[in-house]
Amino acid sequence: MVKINASAITYTKGGEISKILSGTGFSIDTETLGPKQVVIQALATPINPSDLNQLAGTYASKPNFTSELDTPVPVAIGGNEGLYKVIEVGSDVTSYKNGDWVIPKMPSFGTWRTHALVTLDKPENPDPFIKVSSEDDKSIDLTQAATVSINPSTAYQLIDQFIKDWDPKGNDWIIQNGGNSQVGKFVVQIAKIRNIKTISVIRDGKPDQDQIVKELLDLGATKVITDKEAESEEYINKIVPGWVNEGKVILALNCVCGKSGSALVSHLTGNHLADYRSPHLVTYGGMSGQPLMYSSSESLFKNVTSKAYWLTANTKRNPQSKVDTVKKVLALYKSGDIKPVPFNGKEFNIKSTSDDYIKLFLKGIAESKTGKQVIVYN
Amino acid sequence: MVKINASAITYTKGGEISKILSGTGFSIDTETLGPKQVVIQALATPINPSDLNQLAGTYASKPNFTSELDTPVPVAIGGNEGLYKVIEVGSDVTSYKNGDWVIPKMPSFGTWRTHALVTLDKPENPDPFIKVSSEDDKSIDLTQAATVSINPSTAYQLIDQFIKDWDPKGNDWIIQNGGNSQVGKFVVQIAKIRNIKTISVIRDGKPDQDQIVKELLDLGATKVITDKEAESEEYINKIVPGWVNEGKVILALNCVCGKSGSALVSHLTGNHLADYRSPHLVTYGGMSGQPLMYSSSESLFKNVTSKAYWLTANTKRNPQSKVDTVKKVLALYKSGDIKPVPFNGKEFNIKSTSDDYIKLFLKGIAESKTGKQVIVYN
Repeated sequence: MVKINASAITYTKGGEISKILSGTGFSIDTETLGPKQVVIQALATPINPSDLNQLAGTYASKPNFTSELDTPVPVAIGGNEGLYKVIEVGSDVTSYKNGDWVIPKMPSFGTWRTHALVTLDKPENPDPFIKVSSEDDKSIDLTQAATVSINPSTAYQLIDQFIKDWDPKGNDWIIQNGGNSQVGKFVVQIAKIRNIKTISVIRDGKPDQDQIVKELLDLGATKVITDKEAESEEYINKIVPGWVNEGKVILALNCVCGKSGSALVSHLTGNHLADYRSPHLVTYGGMSGQPLMYSSSESLFKNVTSKAYWLTANTKRNPQSKVDTVKKVLALYKSGDIKPVPFNGKEFNIKSTSDDYIKLFLKGIAESKTGKQVIVYN
Repeated sequence: MVKINASAITYTKGGEISKILSGTGFSIDTETLGPKQVVIQALATPINPSDLNQLAGTYASKPNFTSELDTPVPVAIGGNEGLYKVIEVGSDVTSYKNGDWVIPKMPSFGTWRTHALVTLDKPENPDPFIKVSSEDDKSIDLTQAATVSINPSTAYQLIDQFIKDWDPKGNDWIIQNGGNSQVGKFVVQIAKIRNIKTISVIRDGKPDQDQIVKELLDLGATKVITDKEAESEEYINKIVPGWVNEGKVILALNCVCGKSGSALVSHLTGNHLADYRSPHLVTYGGMSGQPLMYSSSESLFKNVTSKAYWLTANTKRNPQSKVDTVKKVLALYKSGDIKPVPFNGKEFNIKSTSDDYIKLFLKGIAESKTGKQVIVYN
């Protein structure tokens, strides 16, 4: 192998997604591979909502611009999550071998590309990958590895980061909106093995509601209710307290904001005058486009703490936290304690042109409203 | 002295304040005083907003009902703050002497009364008072002692409880709405002696605005702006950042909520991707009647923590914390580091009838919209 023809999804400036993205062809010459360089080839590259925010230019985690693709001006490459196979290693590389499955450790790697030439031991990011498996290790499959970096890692940290004293007897509850999201589906699975009960709130009026409820209960949700129910006096004052009984709804996970987030706070259990535990509202998204809001008297009387969760920030501030989380999630996959959440795979032949590549991505982006899209390479 | 004729402001059920309150006469027989009992006589009893919420029945800290006034049914006595003079002590009482100035340690004492007969060493509240001064101690005057229990103690704890690592070089800022409130005026004084800069937000369009600004600057506020200015892009993006410069607005104190609280968050300094300090929004009231609300993206990108502050809860959970705070505030008065904030005194002759007593209180309650009212006894 001498010259690899590669493609990337690039842009020079944030903006309206359909207008800014290009398919850029480039090549990697493996004959000139440095002793501390590796070449990786894409196996699967997901499209996540935060990728789209980053493209739109409204995201605080900015892309890196690179001249490595020999473009007339530096370009950014889309995407923050991807699974790759190592296909070439330089003479001094000992930490990776051909056939290893790796994911980038840091955000803004620019994952939407068929191949990448990566230099190890750079001072700012000496060990840029997390090895998740290898070609001959059958304990982790592609479906698990492709999305391990973001959705299950987010769910794991959401449960782990804020409440440190989960009741070992199983009397603590999580309530979450976005119950039908990828993160929501991992939350119920991970909560269940931690002996934490869950109430997943889903959007009312979906045609396949019964099927969604069944799927979430099968995954381990204790209860599934609609947002309309969650916001009703009957559920706030009677039905949910009846379920929770002597337990406590100690954590609310909010990716919607507006009145949906407000209802979560109404379900939290807390007594500022007596309890030492502060129920937490943790917000990791704002899908409604509305502000984060909740009742000031509930906040006061229940002693609510409201915090922001952001996987990207955790990783940038402490890269090792990402490595640790991914390893814990992989262990849960291997033990069979959790299972992957299905996504919509879109196949791409790695030998196709950059024109085909951008077409497939634009299709995937357009369809990502209907569910998680992952470009899978063959 | 054998029989003391006393009055109290009582009610049997929360509701519309003008309808539920009565003036109740009762008597205290000092001849039958128990060995561990004391009789106290009011010197000053403030009317606070939280007292009115408690009367309305919408407050989570409930009143105590008592049969001690020989009423046909148990009654609650209004008020949570008061300064009293000890006028009789039982034979076994060593911790207080006649002439001591005391304030109740716990909330819901029922302070709106001319006299009280109090039993010491009760298991649930063995030491019910904090001694703040005495008749012959001239280092604390009545104006200071009358309101030490709530407003300056709140201000002290607001600064002390949430941010533990105040920059010793004076580059940290507090922004607060309710800048012209009693608490707000103590916040700027206490912040100044702690080398913390302050931005006090006051309501726009008050006729005496220039005078308010001058008063707050004189008390120690670094900057005073109107709510209209605080909510403007110009102040958020340019003017306030220019003042704060390399410093950080690390604490926002919010007693208003709605868009006023939201604007405070827009002024907080934080970078979730890099900073380890999380800027705090601390809410201790909701004067606007609007929910607590703020931008979810600001929350995420700045890593905002939102918490509830409630003096009553702190005191109920840890009574000693109240004693410690009051002693620290008294020390600041004695050292001249802070000065009392003026209130509207309403004089009451302690020998007047319970009819006169209730009339004066209803007047004070009606006028408490215009500023803090304190019944002062002579």
